[in-house]
Amino acid sequence: MPASKSPFDSMRDLIALMPQPSEASREAVRARQAVLTKPLGSLGRLEEIVGFLAAWQGKAQPSIERPLVAVFAANHGIAEKGVSAYPASVTRAMLDNFKTGGGAINQICAVHGLGLRIFDLALDLPTRDITKAPALEEKEAAATFAFGMEAIAGGIDLLCLGEMGIGNTTVAAAIYHALYGGAAADWAGRGTGVDDAGLARKIAAIELAVGQHRDHLSDPLEIMRRLGGREIAAIAGAILAARMERIPVILDGYVVCAAAAILRALDETALDHCLAGHVSAEGAHKKVLQRLGKKPLLDLGLRLGEGSGAALAFGIVKAAMACHTGMATFDEAKVAGKGEG
Amino acid sequence: MPASKSPFDSMRDLIALMPQPSEASREAVRARQAVLTKPLGSLGRLEEIVGFLAAWQGKAQPSIERPLVAVFAANHGIAEKGVSAYPASVTRAMLDNFKTGGGAINQICAVHGLGLRIFDLALDLPTRDITKAPALEEKEAAATFAFGMEAIAGGIDLLCLGEMGIGNTTVAAAIYHALYGGAAADWAGRGTGVDDAGLARKIAAIELAVGQHRDHLSDPLEIMRRLGGREIAAIAGAILAARMERIPVILDGYVVCAAAAILRALDETALDHCLAGHVSAEGAHKKVLQRLGKKPLLDLGLRLGEGSGAALAFGIVKAAMACHTGMATFDEAKVAGKGEG
Repeated sequence: MPASKSPFDSMRDLIALMPQPSEASREAVRARQAVLTKPLGSLGRLEEIVGFLAAWQGKAQPSIERPLVAVFAANHGIAEKGVSAYPASVTRAMLDNFKTGGGAINQICAVHGLGLRIFDLALDLPTRDITKAPALEEKEAAATFAFGMEAIAGGIDLLCLGEMGIGNTTVAAAIYHALYGGAAADWAGRGTGVDDAGLARKIAAIELAVGQHRDHLSDPLEIMRRLGGREIAAIAGAILAARMERIPVILDGYVVCAAAAILRALDETALDHCLAGHVSAEGAHKKVLQRLGKKPLLDLGLRLGEGSGAALAFGIVKAAMACHTGMATFDEAKVAGKGEG
Repeated sequence: MPASKSPFDSMRDLIALMPQPSEASREAVRARQAVLTKPLGSLGRLEEIVGFLAAWQGKAQPSIERPLVAVFAANHGIAEKGVSAYPASVTRAMLDNFKTGGGAINQICAVHGLGLRIFDLALDLPTRDITKAPALEEKEAAATFAFGMEAIAGGIDLLCLGEMGIGNTTVAAAIYHALYGGAAADWAGRGTGVDDAGLARKIAAIELAVGQHRDHLSDPLEIMRRLGGREIAAIAGAILAARMERIPVILDGYVVCAAAAILRALDETALDHCLAGHVSAEGAHKKVLQRLGKKPLLDLGLRLGEGSGAALAFGIVKAAMACHTGMATFDEAKVAGKGEG
């Protein structure tokens, strides 16, 4: 355990203070759902989603007026090991592409009316090579976590999380391997589409990294700083900040879930305010979601990142809200209820 | 086989003339996808969908400017057998609800920018009780099929199909039982939420109906008119008309798929221009989709009908189109491609 002066302690303190869902608000949603012009439960997960939003917003009538996709980008020393199909320079180039509206995430945000903020986490300062040293110093990790917490401030009412970072599926796999055991190969996927030789290098790097830090992996926050990266730390911070502010979260894919997994390892209720947007085609994401206790909203074979799966899933959430808010009741529509002649 | 003068013959003639997909258009989509700023294939089914739209619209750059949800409503003599949780009067009441904007489908259409047309198929004239007689005369069935074909005319470029009709999950189950065999209970579900006694009556009705018509079930069009209903015939017509006009279709749930299943039993390529919007929580829909060779876009536990699952899935299709149309290429964004340093 860290000494009492550790910068990680304030993170632990916050986790101990996490708000809980408002069951009264969820119940108010259920009561309205029972009188809307449809058989009760016939909108399936859409009905669950509205109850979830109400419980976490703490409002009998939840609302989504200012939904945001936050994309955190970082570079990784491990990218030098040839673990990706693309060079590390692509992280910066893609960030510029997002800023000029050319990415997939820009188009999906436009379709579903989502705001988009892109965060450059010291791209010119890649983390250290995790096969040799901790990715981040403790202070750096805590500061980046705090940056992620601050990043989502500003009156948003729903948060989709995304990331960009060449090499970060390797980092995510190392985190899963450290948290959940098994073999490195169990957690490694092809990321942006690495070839067989690249995949072999990736698996070797994951093994080496977890071996290098093996005596320091009992604390999830140590896993985060040693095997993670700046976007992982910032996303973990954003998830926790959203919880403190009662903002429901939609998680994206394999990399975002690695940040989420750190929090859940600290407290198994830490992700109760999060929906899994989708199950991706990357590596062991399905297995990860099972570990996190999350059933994904979508299963479309995506493996892009950028928050694309979370933003797509927001289309479902938005429709769920619209049904709940806009539908007529049986009385209003003069429709006979169940069993009425 | 019907005599040469059967009104069903023109339906068979049309099926023989169905257009085929444009592989050149699909290939043009693939070529653009290879240069958009994402790893090839990383948008998974979104990339497939755009290729599908191109192939069926016959355009290298597909477009969706006028998407429509068409909801066909009808009443069923079998409803008198207590097979539903709701009285038959609810069909008309829900239609009125759709017309004044109070249904779930209205809200989903508004969210995703879909047009909505509601078709009243002689609601005051329920079909005959299928346990005793054919639901429709041959001429009625053919006329309703033709009505469905006409209904979608008017320059639309994507069609979502929906239905409303108290008793129609019983009718759909009877069609599946006739087409695919097994036991009546294999195909029956709880529809709008019928109780155990109601479910038992439903299964008994399906058995009785299929038994009643057992000597006339080798022709799928006979299955349609004997065991189906007006919305089933109209939806089958709409699916075929869309094919003739190269309009891609998104199928909804259990009942819409019964109409689709009739066409596929006539020609196994008849649904190649259709996507399955979702797999519903109703009865054996998952098994039905396997028979139809369709992988659903969504799996959200819906069992509402009205086209709700198809309209929700349109949110995915719309995002797929937006990505394909709006994303920058590697050259435009000055992003290094795979393997470039």
